Amino acid sequence: MRLLRVGDLGEERPAAFAPDGSVVDVSSVVPDYDHRTLERDSLARVAAAVAEGRLPVVDLAGTRVGPPVSRPGKVVCIGLNYRDHAAETGAAIPTEPIVFMKDPWTVVGPDDDIPIPRGSSKTDYEVELAIVIGRTARYLDGPEQAAEHIAGYAMANDVSERELQLERGGQWDKGKSCEGFNPLGPWLVTPDEFDPSNAPIRLQVNGSDRQVSNTDQLIFDVPTVVHYLSQVMVLHPGDVINTGTPGGVAMGQADPKPYLRDGDVVEAEMTGLGRMRQVFRQA
Amino acid sequence: MRLLRVGDLGEERPAAFAPDGSVVDVSSVVPDYDHRTLERDSLARVAAAVAEGRLPVVDLAGTRVGPPVSRPGKVVCIGLNYRDHAAETGAAIPTEPIVFMKDPWTVVGPDDDIPIPRGSSKTDYEVELAIVIGRTARYLDGPEQAAEHIAGYAMANDVSERELQLERGGQWDKGKSCEGFNPLGPWLVTPDEFDPSNAPIRLQVNGSDRQVSNTDQLIFDVPTVVHYLSQVMVLHPGDVINTGTPGGVAMGQADPKPYLRDGDVVEAEMTGLGRMRQVFRQA
Repeated sequence: MRLLRVGDLGEERPAAFAPDGSVVDVSSVVPDYDHRTLERDSLARVAAAVAEGRLPVVDLAGTRVGPPVSRPGKVVCIGLNYRDHAAETGAAIPTEPIVFMKDPWTVVGPDDDIPIPRGSSKTDYEVELAIVIGRTARYLDGPEQAAEHIAGYAMANDVSERELQLERGGQWDKGKSCEGFNPLGPWLVTPDEFDPSNAPIRLQVNGSDRQVSNTDQLIFDVPTVVHYLSQVMVLHPGDVINTGTPGGVAMGQADPKPYLRDGDVVEAEMTGLGRMRQVFRQA
Repeated sequence: MRLLRVGDLGEERPAAFAPDGSVVDVSSVVPDYDHRTLERDSLARVAAAVAEGRLPVVDLAGTRVGPPVSRPGKVVCIGLNYRDHAAETGAAIPTEPIVFMKDPWTVVGPDDDIPIPRGSSKTDYEVELAIVIGRTARYLDGPEQAAEHIAGYAMANDVSERELQLERGGQWDKGKSCEGFNPLGPWLVTPDEFDPSNAPIRLQVNGSDRQVSNTDQLIFDVPTVVHYLSQVMVLHPGDVINTGTPGGVAMGQADPKPYLRDGDVVEAEMTGLGRMRQVFRQA
C-alpha cells in the first residue's frame, strides 16, 4: 500500500492509493496515521477497506499532500551512514551508528516551502530513506527481528543549518531542528511494496544533480539500524528514523559551497517512494 | 495553579489543586494537558472551574501521578548550564547555550520506576528545572518576551547513560533517550506561583545529598534560554525545556563513581515545585 495524508496543515486526512491509481479517503477507517494506528491491525483494516472499493475518491489536483505520519513521537537520525558523505565532511567512517534527534515538529509535507532561518548562510539539504515504525521495539534480539516492527518507508529531507550544527557549541541538534526542516513523504509505502536494501536515491537543486546514490551504500542497513536503536531507546509506532544521507551535500563541495538561497528548488526522488519538491524561502 | 495528571500509564486524567489543598479532576474542562490545551485560554477555563468549586475530588492515596504534560512535542535540553557542572565534567563554560534533544517518549511520571538499561554501568541522575511552553514562540525579539510564552514549570530528572552519551560515537542524544529517562513532575506550576530565578534545587540518592544548588546559578537563565531557542526552532505549547543540571552528578565524582544501581532510590526536590522519587531497576 501507499498511504498519504491530504489537506491543509493541521487538517490532513488519511488516504491511500487504490489499485486503479486513484486516491481514496480512509478517514472513515482510521482517524489518522499516527502512534495509535500505524500498526498491523489498523493498516490491515485500511487495506481491506481500500480493496472493497467503496471509499470516497480524493482529487489530488490543488490538494496539499502532508507528511504521511501525524505528530511522530520522535525523529531519530543516523549520522554519517554513507561512506562518501562521511568522507566529504572529513569525518571517520563510524564503527557504530551515530545517533541524533530532530524536533518532531519539523516534520512537514513533501512539497511544503521551507524557511531558510534568519541569519543563516549555510542551509543544506540531505535526502534520506526514512523508516516509520509500526510496532513497539525494545531490545530486539537481532536485526532479523526488525522487519516485523516496520510500518513502512518514506523519503525525508534532513535539512541542516551547518553553522548552527557545527560552529555554535557542542551538539548537532541545534542545526537540525529549525522550522520545517524535515519534509517527509510523499507516501508511506508498506514493506511488501518497497525493498530498502537496493533503492536508487537522488536529489537535485534547481534541476542539477547533487546527490545520486543507492541505499545499498548504507554502512548500517535498515535491519541493523532498527536493531541497534532498540537497544538504546524504545521505538514506538509512528516514530520516524532518518537513515542518513549520501555524499553530495553543499557542505562537502568546493568553495563557494552551494548552500541553499531564497528561491532555490530542491527536488528529491527515490524509486518506489515517489518525489518531493521544496522551495526554500528566506524567513 | 498547580496542575497534575493522575491515573495509570496512558490513562491519565488532568487534575489541579483546589484552594483547600484537595485535588480535583478537570477532565470535564480540558481533555488533557497537551499541545492543544497548554495555552492561556484553556488554562483560564481550568482556573475558573477550579475556583467555582464543583469539580469531583480525586483521592491521591493509591493513585499514580503521571507527567503533567501528555506527549510533549519535543524535549529540548540545555547542556552544561551550571558552572560547577561544566567544571566537574571537564568542559569549558559555554559561551552560548548547548542544545540537545531527548526522545519525548522518555517523559514519565515523577515517581515511576526507571529501568537501568541492559549492559549499562554508568546510569546517572541530573535534577533540572523544566520549562513547559504555553504559546508558540518563533524569533522572539528578546528575553523579555519569554514570560508570555511559558505555561509553567516542573522538575525533571534528565537521566543519562554516560557510556552511551560520551563513549559510543558522536552525539549525546544516544545516552539521553533510554526508556523512562525523563521523569517530569509532580506538578506543572503556573508562573504566578513560581519564581524560576531563585529556586533551591536538591537531589539525593538513597537519602544522601548529591546535588544541592539554586537556579540563581544558571549560566543562561530562563528568559535567555527561551529567547535563544526561539531563534533556532519553533517552540510549541506542551514542549518541555530541561534547563540544565547543577554539579554533583555521579560522573563528576571521585572513583569509584557512584553510578546508579538496581534498587537505588533517587529523590529530588525544588521549593515550590514539589518532590519526585524514582526507584531504579535493572532492565
